[in-house]
Amino acid sequence: MYHHAIQQFARTLRNLDAVLGKAEAHAKTRNFDVNNFLTARLAPDMLPFVRQVRIACDHAKSAAQALSGKELPKHEDNEATLEDLHGRIAKCLAVLDGLSAADFAATKPDAIVKMPNRPGKGMRADDYLWHRQIPNFYFHVTTAYDLLRAGGVDIGKSDFIGPLDIVDL
Amino acid sequence: MYHHAIQQFARTLRNLDAVLGKAEAHAKTRNFDVNNFLTARLAPDMLPFVRQVRIACDHAKSAAQALSGKELPKHEDNEATLEDLHGRIAKCLAVLDGLSAADFAATKPDAIVKMPNRPGKGMRADDYLWHRQIPNFYFHVTTAYDLLRAGGVDIGKSDFIGPLDIVDL
Repeated sequence: MYHHAIQQFARTLRNLDAVLGKAEAHAKTRNFDVNNFLTARLAPDMLPFVRQVRIACDHAKSAAQALSGKELPKHEDNEATLEDLHGRIAKCLAVLDGLSAADFAATKPDAIVKMPNRPGKGMRADDYLWHRQIPNFYFHVTTAYDLLRAGGVDIGKSDFIGPLDIVDL
Repeated sequence: MYHHAIQQFARTLRNLDAVLGKAEAHAKTRNFDVNNFLTARLAPDMLPFVRQVRIACDHAKSAAQALSGKELPKHEDNEATLEDLHGRIAKCLAVLDGLSAADFAATKPDAIVKMPNRPGKGMRADDYLWHRQIPNFYFHVTTAYDLLRAGGVDIGKSDFIGPLDIVDL
């Protein structure tokens, strides 16, 4: 199940990457610098777009690290362009896609896992995933989406959700 | 696991209910009608705040219905005040809290479940939860949060996440 959760994070990051592409198309049509989005905020005391994307990536990677028990690479926060953000997502996806179900098999729901960004602190594995990482991850991906939506980019919820396997009953 | 997912939706809706309380406190301090938030949007062609809250509730309830196979009550979309939205969340929570692990025990990950709002359509249970309901639910709760945040309400991510059981290692 933990591998399944990580695969879903990867799926959502791929959707976010496509949403960044729509921001680029919008900026081209309107003839403005797409990198202006990097400092966009919904409120002046809120983290800007560039950090929403970075943090979404890091929450996915932190979940993968804590639930697999493997040390995963740290990615520097140095993106200055939208193109760099594509790169940040690609680096994160390379890490997530490099893990298999076997990497998570030893972690039981009641195990206490180490919180990657809280030295000396831990949580029950299931609580860590459900109470902390899933809500945090979607919080930042949705806020990144909302910033682009507020900025006029032509995106809808289907861009956020991605394609679904729906069948006739 | 499906019951666990539904319990987490309920947990997040309780956090959202507390966030609505902070919007009320903010409106009182600034001396404006808190119900002004109901029509707030991040873009003019986006669903307003009142619908973000309703849809979040409905995604949680739809997941509970599809994954339990039980027919659950439909809630009318008639909220006109923030107080009514507290009521909508409370009704949804009463439904979610009325379900137990046993209600979900018969649904296997590969089962095709009926999509409550797509007559004649279904999805594999696991895909329905992970690919559709979890992202949709958090999309609308986060957008509701973001609308209040953009409107100056004094909330932080800890209000969205709620209390966590963190232990010393």
